[in-house]
Amino acid sequence: MGINQKEILQEIKILDGGHICSPKGFFAGGLHCGLKRKKHDLGWLYSIVPANAAAVYTTNLIQAAPILVTRESIEVDKQIQGVIVNSGNANACTGEEGYRHALLMRHYFAKKMNMKEEHVAVSSTGIIGEQLPINKVLDGIKMIGKVEESAANFEKAILTTDTTQKRACVQLEIDGKMITIGGAAKGSGMIHPNMATMLAFITTDANVEQEALQSALKTVVDETFNMITVDGDTSTNDMVLLLANGLAKNTMLTPNSPAWLHFIQGLETVCQLLAKEIAKDGEGATKLIEAKVIGAAGEEDAKKLAKSVIGSNLVKSAVFGTDPNWGRIVCALGYSGVDFDTENISVFIGPYQLFANGLPALFEESEVKTYMEENNEIQILVELHEGESSAIAWGCDLTYDYVKINASYRT
Amino acid sequence: MGINQKEILQEIKILDGGHICSPKGFFAGGLHCGLKRKKHDLGWLYSIVPANAAAVYTTNLIQAAPILVTRESIEVDKQIQGVIVNSGNANACTGEEGYRHALLMRHYFAKKMNMKEEHVAVSSTGIIGEQLPINKVLDGIKMIGKVEESAANFEKAILTTDTTQKRACVQLEIDGKMITIGGAAKGSGMIHPNMATMLAFITTDANVEQEALQSALKTVVDETFNMITVDGDTSTNDMVLLLANGLAKNTMLTPNSPAWLHFIQGLETVCQLLAKEIAKDGEGATKLIEAKVIGAAGEEDAKKLAKSVIGSNLVKSAVFGTDPNWGRIVCALGYSGVDFDTENISVFIGPYQLFANGLPALFEESEVKTYMEENNEIQILVELHEGESSAIAWGCDLTYDYVKINASYRT
Repeated sequence: MGINQKEILQEIKILDGGHICSPKGFFAGGLHCGLKRKKHDLGWLYSIVPANAAAVYTTNLIQAAPILVTRESIEVDKQIQGVIVNSGNANACTGEEGYRHALLMRHYFAKKMNMKEEHVAVSSTGIIGEQLPINKVLDGIKMIGKVEESAANFEKAILTTDTTQKRACVQLEIDGKMITIGGAAKGSGMIHPNMATMLAFITTDANVEQEALQSALKTVVDETFNMITVDGDTSTNDMVLLLANGLAKNTMLTPNSPAWLHFIQGLETVCQLLAKEIAKDGEGATKLIEAKVIGAAGEEDAKKLAKSVIGSNLVKSAVFGTDPNWGRIVCALGYSGVDFDTENISVFIGPYQLFANGLPALFEESEVKTYMEENNEIQILVELHEGESSAIAWGCDLTYDYVKINASYRT
Repeated sequence: MGINQKEILQEIKILDGGHICSPKGFFAGGLHCGLKRKKHDLGWLYSIVPANAAAVYTTNLIQAAPILVTRESIEVDKQIQGVIVNSGNANACTGEEGYRHALLMRHYFAKKMNMKEEHVAVSSTGIIGEQLPINKVLDGIKMIGKVEESAANFEKAILTTDTTQKRACVQLEIDGKMITIGGAAKGSGMIHPNMATMLAFITTDANVEQEALQSALKTVVDETFNMITVDGDTSTNDMVLLLANGLAKNTMLTPNSPAWLHFIQGLETVCQLLAKEIAKDGEGATKLIEAKVIGAAGEEDAKKLAKSVIGSNLVKSAVFGTDPNWGRIVCALGYSGVDFDTENISVFIGPYQLFANGLPALFEESEVKTYMEENNEIQILVELHEGESSAIAWGCDLTYDYVKINASYRT
């Protein structure tokens, strides 16, 4: 699909400082219940009315208990009204007992908020293989209503070793109604023995038919969250949840609506902003890498190529070392599994062409190095001549700190 | 296939200090021709008679000029008598001119050695995208015959940033004849802007039918060289070449020979020893990791699972940090793409069981940590209950030095 930048600039407004509570009728909060030492570790999000829900889950064969419970909830009415999230413990590889804990979180949060149980989603991130200290979580749930609510507290409560909170928000007009889409996310956190869990919660007051919502989310996740990689590892707890409560009172959106593509663009903008924040905050990262592939034979090819570049430890190390190493980029294209005419590749870093039609180009290495030193977002552009398809993937550099965080997090 | 260790101990003798010139009729040498600053950078290997040849090449779409020329040579008679190899320059992404250079290497080496051109293989490793200083190479070829020959000099001449020479040799008896199989290899070298090129040259005096030889090599490479990963990147120049000159005078081996499996086991032993040497010498590596998967539904599943564990940056970092992090191992199994019953997995590090039937096992963390600190080869065992298939993959830990070498090799 891809975003038409021009159209967005005209019609989609990025709301600086906007968040998951910017759409009408959404509230959120977070507090410290004792799973982490000091920081917020329990978050909640709810809509004043049940919202149509869509979700995309981890493809890891091993799925944490909260993922199972959330699937069960959504299955019933395809609606979610509230979300309860804890960090500090992933409730994964915890067997029957872990499953019961996730059910308890759902039960007590639903009761507290006066919602149907099956309208509650549960999410966890943190240590895997340890039982959730469930009493701390349930005591935390009791505190809801007694503490001040804010999107910022929710954003904090879902983090593990992320160094920054991640939010995004856009507004667009549909049917003369102002539609708002907000989001909060967490990226790669690494707590023993956890892996890089990715969570994103998207809220909107748009009125969207549920099946269409699910299909929109799937499409957009494939272009955004599925195009980022920090280290290629996929967690047991990954989830992207999208709630549309309809309070903007637009005519119900379906794929046949004239404004359908417009809505998808808004959703994609929010997800792309969050995805880039996650990539940029990869463990130990100092730079965001954006790899764009154009002229591929098909979209799948373009995605594979872009991800192969972004996923190469050698490319990631070269960016950390501000080394305009086109050889590693070309090599990553070559082993991506995509077939293309190798004599037609061109590679650019920033505005500099390093490789032209299958052969090294003449370029001033010091200039490219300066570009790489001075920018926090390094653009890699690969041009093929196989077709019209393009894709963008995002990642980060591989640094001493990545190794440090993951080899010796306990010290 | 897999090696039956017991049988090997009885019938295959590992020859300490043996090398590519241990089989009858093979000679090799190496010298400095000026591609590198000081070290050997030109190697040659030959048999006194043309040898049946088998080869497995890189699967990278971008293939270096010497790979093309070697393919053309083997195509003619399926025989190779001599091999000329340079390090310091990969002659990859060098277009028509690079191709002519590879032809020139073949031509002058063949002339010097009085061989047919089509009986000569060419191999290069080093910088990509720069034209080979062909006159230095041709001057080097002129020196052959004027310098002392030795397998050790050949082993040195093929290295890039490897820290050790890599050799292996076995002997076995077939038909009452002593058969010797020797090998030399290089692993991950990283010279701007190169990638981790893997080269292996295997020699044997066994008499083996050519098609059978090719099929044996393919099978064995899949179990050995294709089961190692340093950083997942595949180079433009990778090649494994196997020459069988028949001077042991055994009855010609074919897949129907009673001793066929025995020969394959010998070949596999040599390739496995070299593969482990390469994995152990991965850039910045301090430890070899061996991941064994047993009880998988099929061989492909077992291989995918073992490689997924070995390829995980998180597992590799954990080994560097001597952290018995079963969560990362389980997670890597989960995203491998293989389907299995997650409640039946067990995971061991060394003799310690960390995960039993889908749940964390009780273990003394300090004991496992001590095992990981005190051993240079870390064994990870994964047990499924899906079937009878098993596989082993080898890799190395991810260290500060990996990042250092690949981010700042120029300083």
